[in-house]
Amino acid sequence: MNVVGLLAFAVVGSLRGADADLDVLGVAVLGVLTALGGGVTRDLLVDSVPVALRSTTDVSVVLFGVVAGIALARLGDDLTDQSLTDHAVVLLPDAVGLAAFATTGALVATDAGLSAFGVVVLATVTGVGGGLVSDVLLRNVPFVLVEDFYATCAIVGGSVFWLVATVGVGQRASALVCAVVVFGLRSLAIRYEWELPTV
Amino acid sequence: MNVVGLLAFAVVGSLRGADADLDVLGVAVLGVLTALGGGVTRDLLVDSVPVALRSTTDVSVVLFGVVAGIALARLGDDLTDQSLTDHAVVLLPDAVGLAAFATTGALVATDAGLSAFGVVVLATVTGVGGGLVSDVLLRNVPFVLVEDFYATCAIVGGSVFWLVATVGVGQRASALVCAVVVFGLRSLAIRYEWELPTV
Amino acid sequence: MNVVGLLAFAVVGSLRGADADLDVLGVAVLGVLTALGGGVTRDLLVDSVPVALRSTTDVSVVLFGVVAGIALARLGDDLTDQSLTDHAVVLLPDAVGLAAFATTGALVATDAGLSAFGVVVLATVTGVGGGLVSDVLLRNVPFVLVEDFYATCAIVGGSVFWLVATVGVGQRASALVCAVVVFGLRSLAIRYEWELPTV
Repeated sequence: MNVVGLLAFAVVGSLRGADADLDVLGVAVLGVLTALGGGVTRDLLVDSVPVALRSTTDVSVVLFGVVAGIALARLGDDLTDQSLTDHAVVLLPDAVGLAAFATTGALVATDAGLSAFGVVVLATVTGVGGGLVSDVLLRNVPFVLVEDFYATCAIVGGSVFWLVATVGVGQRASALVCAVVVFGLRSLAIRYEWELPTV
Repeated sequence: MNVVGLLAFAVVGSLRGADADLDVLGVAVLGVLTALGGGVTRDLLVDSVPVALRSTTDVSVVLFGVVAGIALARLGDDLTDQSLTDHAVVLLPDAVGLAAFATTGALVATDAGLSAFGVVVLATVTGVGGGLVSDVLLRNVPFVLVEDFYATCAIVGGSVFWLVATVGVGQRASALVCAVVVFGLRSLAIRYEWELPTV
Repeated sequence: MNVVGLLAFAVVGSLRGADADLDVLGVAVLGVLTALGGGVTRDLLVDSVPVALRSTTDVSVVLFGVVAGIALARLGDDLTDQSLTDHAVVLLPDAVGLAAFATTGALVATDAGLSAFGVVVLATVTGVGGGLVSDVLLRNVPFVLVEDFYATCAIVGGSVFWLVATVGVGQRASALVCAVVVFGLRSLAIRYEWELPTV
């Protein structure tokens, strides 16, 4: 599931880079940051050297995703006038990625002995951090702040994880529940175009 | 004093989020980041797991501040055409927050054995880091770079702390002097609309 | 070489701050961040307290660079209509800085036992991180994403370092090769105005 997430986030990131007319390197950087940014921030927050800089599997998956993203961007230009970033081919794997990353974040937070708030923050940061960084670099107002029901799924997932884990169920079950909740909420939000009210 | 700071910064952050027409989650994220961003960065720089992710008191205060900020934003819309962010009700607690945060930063830096520059940097980062992050997310040029006498107060406060501490006075006295200097400077800057010259 | 880099980056950063009509403090902050941002991020990624906050030599050099940058900005206003940031007086030292910082990043990554990807990332982050941060603060799309052959030099340099070091040559020789490659590539890129293709 983590692999699907890395792949999906790398594809989304590089599609968005291509949409913004970046050069090849810029597209690659955006893909890599979108996929790894959340996890790296998570590791920094619990004071450890980021996994992504030590292992090579994650990176290989991400680079493959970047190549796929560039290919998709070219394909999309030929087939449609729309960007593929709003297409179900991208949105569904992206939801899987959000669920996988939010769950990893909650697990790492629990292992590091953080508070309930820490668990929710790490679930959210791991899930949306990469997209937020790439928004800042592209000078968009981060989509998590203005757009629909995205970060909310990770926040709810992190809270559910903490609740379930505190009740005494094992980590595995909590992780499963968290992933299902995040993916379910996000799918419903896409399907019914949920939005949060403004103040 | 730290509590006043967290509260004030959370209120300011969520008022600014409301001004920018973010949704409820965006407003909450902005309030939380403005209040906790500086402290989290400070903890990362001295290589420890952020306090805000381990304790729950800080977070409760901040969330209360966010709710107050949302209420104030609605109230402000009814009463005046102006945003409340420039009103004394917000500016004075904000100055207390700046003083409290700059002092905490200087204390943490001293405990970590940083250089004089490190003390000044940590005082400044803790004081203005949260506001800077929320400016970046809202795509404003950070106010610390263009606007009046704000970060300067923290820089002066950090320097004074280091000087006083180096002379051999205890940490407590240094902290007190630092807080008084920052709050005093900031109050004067607000009162007399001090500005720094451009190059 | 590191000193030349710190100096050049501080000058470039403060020139860009002056171009953006920041106040004196803003210019200084931009110079300091451009010069130290990459190294601080590097140290955070390998989980150590940033060198820049512990020693005082680096900071003195950087502050000197900021003063020089402000003087140059005034001088440039008198002499030419153009900004000095595109002038060879600035571009060449900047290339030395890029080479020095990329090499330091690769060395730190190797000492921390990172993967090949980690070595490349740290070389790149150390080399371009400061400029990227200042771009974000000035609300520019980061030059590393859109502009010519800059980050690419650091990426190639980091890869070469890892290759040479893996073949079994000592760290010193690897570092030398890396620095020469980065500086050489960057000089050629400036001279012949190399660009990367867009997707």
